[in-house]
Amino acid sequence: MSFGRILIANRGEIALRVARTCREMGIRTVAVYSTADRDARFVAYADDAVHIGPAPARRSYLYVPAVIEAALQTGAEAIHPGYGFLSEDADFARICADHGITFIGPRPEVMECVGDKARVRSLMAEAGLPVLPGSDGAVPSAAEAERIAAEIGYPVIVKAAAGGGGRGIEVARDRAELREVYRRTTASARRMFGNGDVYLERFVPVARHVEVQLLGDSAGTVVHLGERDCSLQRRNQKLVEEAPSPALSAEVRRRLGEYAVAGARHVGYTGAGTMEFLVDPAGEATFMEINARIQVEHPVTEMLTGVDLVREQIRVAMGERLPFTQEQIRSTGAAIECRVNAEDPDAGFRPAPGRLTVFRPPGGPGVRVDSGFAQGDVIPPDYDSMIAKLVVWAPTREEAVARADRALAEFAVAGPGVATTIPLLRDLLARPEFAAGAHSTRFVDEFMAERDQLRRSA
Amino acid sequence: MSFGRILIANRGEIALRVARTCREMGIRTVAVYSTADRDARFVAYADDAVHIGPAPARRSYLYVPAVIEAALQTGAEAIHPGYGFLSEDADFARICADHGITFIGPRPEVMECVGDKARVRSLMAEAGLPVLPGSDGAVPSAAEAERIAAEIGYPVIVKAAAGGGGRGIEVARDRAELREVYRRTTASARRMFGNGDVYLERFVPVARHVEVQLLGDSAGTVVHLGERDCSLQRRNQKLVEEAPSPALSAEVRRRLGEYAVAGARHVGYTGAGTMEFLVDPAGEATFMEINARIQVEHPVTEMLTGVDLVREQIRVAMGERLPFTQEQIRSTGAAIECRVNAEDPDAGFRPAPGRLTVFRPPGGPGVRVDSGFAQGDVIPPDYDSMIAKLVVWAPTREEAVARADRALAEFAVAGPGVATTIPLLRDLLARPEFAAGAHSTRFVDEFMAERDQLRRSA
Repeated sequence: MSFGRILIANRGEIALRVARTCREMGIRTVAVYSTADRDARFVAYADDAVHIGPAPARRSYLYVPAVIEAALQTGAEAIHPGYGFLSEDADFARICADHGITFIGPRPEVMECVGDKARVRSLMAEAGLPVLPGSDGAVPSAAEAERIAAEIGYPVIVKAAAGGGGRGIEVARDRAELREVYRRTTASARRMFGNGDVYLERFVPVARHVEVQLLGDSAGTVVHLGERDCSLQRRNQKLVEEAPSPALSAEVRRRLGEYAVAGARHVGYTGAGTMEFLVDPAGEATFMEINARIQVEHPVTEMLTGVDLVREQIRVAMGERLPFTQEQIRSTGAAIECRVNAEDPDAGFRPAPGRLTVFRPPGGPGVRVDSGFAQGDVIPPDYDSMIAKLVVWAPTREEAVARADRALAEFAVAGPGVATTIPLLRDLLARPEFAAGAHSTRFVDEFMAERDQLRRSA
Repeated sequence: MSFGRILIANRGEIALRVARTCREMGIRTVAVYSTADRDARFVAYADDAVHIGPAPARRSYLYVPAVIEAALQTGAEAIHPGYGFLSEDADFARICADHGITFIGPRPEVMECVGDKARVRSLMAEAGLPVLPGSDGAVPSAAEAERIAAEIGYPVIVKAAAGGGGRGIEVARDRAELREVYRRTTASARRMFGNGDVYLERFVPVARHVEVQLLGDSAGTVVHLGERDCSLQRRNQKLVEEAPSPALSAEVRRRLGEYAVAGARHVGYTGAGTMEFLVDPAGEATFMEINARIQVEHPVTEMLTGVDLVREQIRVAMGERLPFTQEQIRSTGAAIECRVNAEDPDAGFRPAPGRLTVFRPPGGPGVRVDSGFAQGDVIPPDYDSMIAKLVVWAPTREEAVARADRALAEFAVAGPGVATTIPLLRDLLARPEFAAGAHSTRFVDEFMAERDQLRRSA
C-alpha cells in the first residue's frame, strides 16, 4: 500500500511539520482548517485545504464528521492526526477505518488500552515494568481511595484515567485532602474527558520526567530511539526538552529502553509512541504513561538519530517494515528543544497573541526551527500559545546549552501586545541547576516563585 | 591563550556565521563594515562594529590599515578573515602578527606557498600526490608555453598562479589558441591579482570537482573530514555542493583523504583548509589546488560530521589541540548545499538585488540556512549576489535531494527587481543526471545552453 494523499487533521507547526515530510515523500497533502486559521501557513502549504468550521476545536478540529467528509471529498487515503485534538481518540481511528481511511497511528484497540491510564499500569506491570504502588485500575469511591492510600502511604497522586500529559492530576497529602481531591478530580475528569474515572499512585515529590521514543511496525518489530528528558516543566507543562537525559546512568538508560520495548511489545504497539517514566533522585525509574502519538518534542530525537519520525509513522501505516534494527540506531551529541510561547511570564503566563510585525527565527549551525508562523502573520487567540519550537544540536550538552542561548538571543519576535517566553527560557538555561542537569520537575515553579518575589520587592 | 574578542574582517552570511560560533564560545565580536553595509544583519549582530570605509572593497574590506586600526581600537586579539577578501593574503597575516594580533588561519609562509598555485603543484608532487602533467612552476613566455604544451599534449589549461577558485583560467585547444590565451591570461592575472604569472596543465575535459576538508593544529596533527563534491558549477562558479560525492568509490575516497593529509603535513598546514581534486570519468584523481581558508560550502561537512569548523579554526588559533583523532571523526548521511543568488538566470545571471519585501527561509527537519539577510533588508548591489546558503541533511542522498527540493520550494524571496536562482536550482536538482550523480562540471553550462535554446524557440 502506498498513499497518494494524506489529510492532516491538525493545525499550526505540527500540520506544517507533517506536510513537509509528505512533500519529501512525494505524497500530496490536504489541510483542514477553522475560520480562525484561514490565513495560516499550514493551509497555504498544503496541496489542498478544506474549511471545516469555526474556531472552537469541538466545531472544527475535533468535529469528526467534518474531518471525515474532507478526507472523502479530497480522496485522502490516510489521516495524520498530529498531537492533541483527535490523535489519541480510538473512536476516531475506528471511524476512519469504517470509511476505508487509514488512521496513521496504533490500532484502535491499542489506543484504547493505552488511553486508559489506570488499565495500562496493570498491563505494564504484567510486562515486567516497575510501576508505583497504587490502585489496581479506577477507584470507584472516595472511601476506597482512602483505603488504598492508607495502604500505599501519603502523599498520593490522583489521576484521571482518561487524562495524560499532566492534565487532570492532583496530589493529596492526607486523608482529609484526599476526600476533597477525589471529589474535585472525578468532577474535572468528567468535565474535561467525559469520563470521571480516577486512579491512585504513590506521589514522588522530587523526580525527573524522562520519556522513551518508540517505533513499532505491523510485523511486530519494536525499537526505541533513546530518551528525552522533559523535567523543565511549569505546572506539568513542558517548557524545555533535551536528550540525552543528564540524570541517567548508562545502566538506567539501558533499562528504560528495554522496559519501553517490552511494554510496547506486550500491547502490540505500532507506529510512533512515547513511554513516560518518573526517575527519582536515587535513579529508580517507574512507568508513568504511554502517549500513542507523535510528541511535540519529537525533533529532539530526530536531531540525535537522524530518523524522520513522521516518515516512519507514514511508512508503518503503509504496511512497510522499519528500515533499521535496534542495533542500527545511532544517537550522537546532545539536543535541546525550547518551546517559544506567546505568553507573558510576568503576568502569570497570560497568553499574549497578536500580529507578528517582527518574526526572525535564528539560523546557522545546529539550529532547527519548527513554526507555523512567519513575519506579518497574526497569532489567533483561539488555540495554544506555542509559536515556535527551537531545537538545537551540538556534540556535547555544554555546547548545546550555549547554542540554545545563542539561538534564543537571535530569535526576534515582536508585535503590538505580543510577549514571548524567550527571555524566561534564556534565564532558565543560564541557571546553574540547569547547567548541572540537576533540576527536577519542580525547578521552574520554584524559580518563578523566587522571581515573582524579587519583582515584588524591587 | 584564549581570545576575549575577535574582529571579523568580512561581511554578509560568513561574518554572521563566524559571530554565531564566537557567541557560543563566549567570545565578543567586532564587525567591520562599509557604508553600503551599515544596516546589515552582521553589523547589528556583533558586540561592536566599526565603519571602515565606502563600498568598494579596496577602500573597506580590503583596506588593511582600516581593518588593523579597528582591531587595535577595539582591543580585538584576533582577526577571522572569513573567505574571499583578505582571507588568503599572507601579507595581511604578517601585518596582523606585527601588531600582536592573531590571524585565524595558517602561518603566513604556508599561505604564501599554497597561494602560489604553480609552486604548490610541485610541492604536492613531492609529497606523493598525483598532479596533472604540466609546467614546472610559472611559464615565462608564450614560446615556452608552446614548448610545454607540445610535450603534454593539447588541450591545455592556462591558470593564473595567484588565482584559484575558478578565476583566471582558460583552455587552449591548439597552438594558435594558446598564444592568444597566454597573452590574455597573463594580462588578466596582472589586472586581477597584481601578478601575471601563469602555469600550464593538461586539460581534463570531463571531470568532477571534489575537495577534501582539512584541519591541522600547531602540534602537527592533521585530519581530514571527508570530501565535498562541487561539480555542479556554472562557468567555474559553484552552485550546489554535496557530500559524500556520488562519484567516488570507497577506494578513491580513502585515497583522497590520505593525499589531503599527506599534502597538508608536507607544508605544515594549520587551521581549516581545503584540498581540491579533479576526478576523471575513470575515477582517477589529480591534485588541483589548496584553499587556505574556510570555504563557502563548509556547512556541508558540518552537517555530516557535527564538527563546527569555525570553532576548530578558533581553537587551533588559540594554540589548542584538535579534540579528535582521524578515527574519531564520524560522517553519516548525505548533505547538499544550494547557493541562493539574487540573479536572473533568464537574463544571463544578471545580478538582481533590491529590497526583500518577502524573505522566508525554510525550516523543519534537516534544514540549515545561513544568510546575512532578513525580511525588509536591502541587498546592496556592491557585492556578490549570494543571499543565502540552504543546506540540508538526510540519511541518504535520495532523501537529501527530496529535502533540498522541499526546502527550496518553501523558500519565499520577493521584492521589486529581485530575482533568484531558486527556480533554476530546483530544475537542476530535478534532472536525471543529478539524481544519478553522473553530472560533470560541464553539466550546468550544457543545461543552460539547452534551456536558452528552448526559450528562444518557444
